[in-house]
Amino acid sequence: MAKSPESAEDRLIARHFRPLATTPGAFGLIDDAAALSPPPGCDIVLTTDGVIAGVHFFPDDPPDTISRKALRMNLSDLAAKGARPLGFLMSVALPEAFGEAWLSGFTAGLAEDAAHFGCPLYGGDTDRTPGPTSVSIFAFGAVPQGKMVHRSTARPGDRIVVTGTIGDAAIGLKLRRERALAQRWRLSDAAADALVERYLLPQPRNALAAAVLQYATAAIDISDGLAGDIAKLAHASSVAAEIGVARVPFSDAARAAMTAEPALLETALTGGDDYEIVLTLPPERLGDFQKAARAAGVAVAEIGSVGAGEGTRFMHDGKPLTFARVSHSHF
Amino acid sequence: MAKSPESAEDRLIARHFRPLATTPGAFGLIDDAAALSPPPGCDIVLTTDGVIAGVHFFPDDPPDTISRKALRMNLSDLAAKGARPLGFLMSVALPEAFGEAWLSGFTAGLAEDAAHFGCPLYGGDTDRTPGPTSVSIFAFGAVPQGKMVHRSTARPGDRIVVTGTIGDAAIGLKLRRERALAQRWRLSDAAADALVERYLLPQPRNALAAAVLQYATAAIDISDGLAGDIAKLAHASSVAAEIGVARVPFSDAARAAMTAEPALLETALTGGDDYEIVLTLPPERLGDFQKAARAAGVAVAEIGSVGAGEGTRFMHDGKPLTFARVSHSHF
Repeated sequence: MAKSPESAEDRLIARHFRPLATTPGAFGLIDDAAALSPPPGCDIVLTTDGVIAGVHFFPDDPPDTISRKALRMNLSDLAAKGARPLGFLMSVALPEAFGEAWLSGFTAGLAEDAAHFGCPLYGGDTDRTPGPTSVSIFAFGAVPQGKMVHRSTARPGDRIVVTGTIGDAAIGLKLRRERALAQRWRLSDAAADALVERYLLPQPRNALAAAVLQYATAAIDISDGLAGDIAKLAHASSVAAEIGVARVPFSDAARAAMTAEPALLETALTGGDDYEIVLTLPPERLGDFQKAARAAGVAVAEIGSVGAGEGTRFMHDGKPLTFARVSHSHF
Repeated sequence: MAKSPESAEDRLIARHFRPLATTPGAFGLIDDAAALSPPPGCDIVLTTDGVIAGVHFFPDDPPDTISRKALRMNLSDLAAKGARPLGFLMSVALPEAFGEAWLSGFTAGLAEDAAHFGCPLYGGDTDRTPGPTSVSIFAFGAVPQGKMVHRSTARPGDRIVVTGTIGDAAIGLKLRRERALAQRWRLSDAAADALVERYLLPQPRNALAAAVLQYATAAIDISDGLAGDIAKLAHASSVAAEIGVARVPFSDAARAAMTAEPALLETALTGGDDYEIVLTLPPERLGDFQKAARAAGVAVAEIGSVGAGEGTRFMHDGKPLTFARVSHSHF
């Protein structure tokens, strides 16, 4: 007689991951695959992004922020493409010593976000690893057929708009690494905490996805820094971009830090992990878009314009800024 | 002026991964997401599986077998669910010292399989890791709406059928670890090579997916060992399964090894990495299914039957076998 097929892995999945699999197509995670019924008339938008301990997060970050950030990085991609989330799969590699409490925190945070963003778990894969904890998420969303918003379709004459505030996460990462900087930058504890929080837990702009779909000519989510990601959009679209640095939206906390330490302007403009959206649209659509953004509760700011030619310029006090490093790259 | 947005990561993607992105929906991997137009009237079957160096493969395995095995593990899941492959996304974490030649081999093998199985790359994510090389693949396929084949739907009276041969990979893994065993087991070099090859490079039964879809009441791919995976199917279906060990198909090489070392019978029945399919179907469909399998060029063998009750028994010389460990589990 073969033993019960309930392995330790099965129990781990049942206990920690099954509560996230709220969609019928996940079959309670007891099958080898899930089934998604695509919404009629829609394309499925597919994206994948992941995090590795020691590379994308600190091993002692709160476990719920690790899982939520991993999901939100993917949600941000869907938002920038104008897609509505449908669900995700997750592959998790855990070291021997991960601990049940850690995993409970990890999945509890994820469950909260899955519910909040309407993005249930469809399935996954769990493994032991001799290396660092790593999480890969594969998210999928829906757009009307052929309507995914691209990064390569900006047009000369378009205005450039960005959501939320820029640079908080990059400055927050510096504070996460060295809290003493808060004193040097004369930041209140609350301001420093807010910046670190923006690093730990991005706020993807999925509430704006429908407006991006309706109004944007092109869009990209800002994961590798505003300067680099606008440059990617302009390059892919074969256009030039000009940004007025004075118009880039910064939080009060980021502004305070930059006042004390002007070099943080470059950090803010080129650092990663914003998970805001930068998009382009014709000037005549700007008013309607701003109205839609207000209705969605997402702050947006017009920061520049698209022209013929090539290259991206950040104009500051009448002169183009030069960056030491324009964008974040893993290689 | 911002620098060219072509980062080292962009160049790596363009050089090694873009050739695999042969589908228009991948947008040449220059966007943040891909778009899949679902085949009309179909559900999208979603699965994910991955490999980690030192856990699922040896760091010095040929790089083309690492990528192909990772894809084939997922293709095997799709085949067992009756799904036709549509494409995949891949998340790869590479250590500092991976080397261009290694990556060329990795992607060349993957390109070959993507073409052979009609499963193009839609997108991915590449990162550096301080840990071992790891590869997560998210594959998706199509089945007619509502028709995904489950593991939980076997019925008393069904026959149990398995594809290919069982246990080669598990015995091959032992040989991969300790080649000297070939002498002890009196295997020819060719036989030992064939077994190791089955471990390195599974042969997923996608050619049989349409027949599985048409005839099977339930199915599961054999990744954690025949005994464990049949037990999972029986458990999920709330039925009993009885297997005649004499009817389980073994390769000549596996048979030769088992003759020299009878304990390898348990290795063969409980070891992982077969990537065959075990399925159930009513006796009256068996003939038509066997005909379809012949037409698809896939060997199939009837090895047992489904009954009321619970538990899985492997009958050998009139007695049920007892296994020390029924199945492979990572936790």
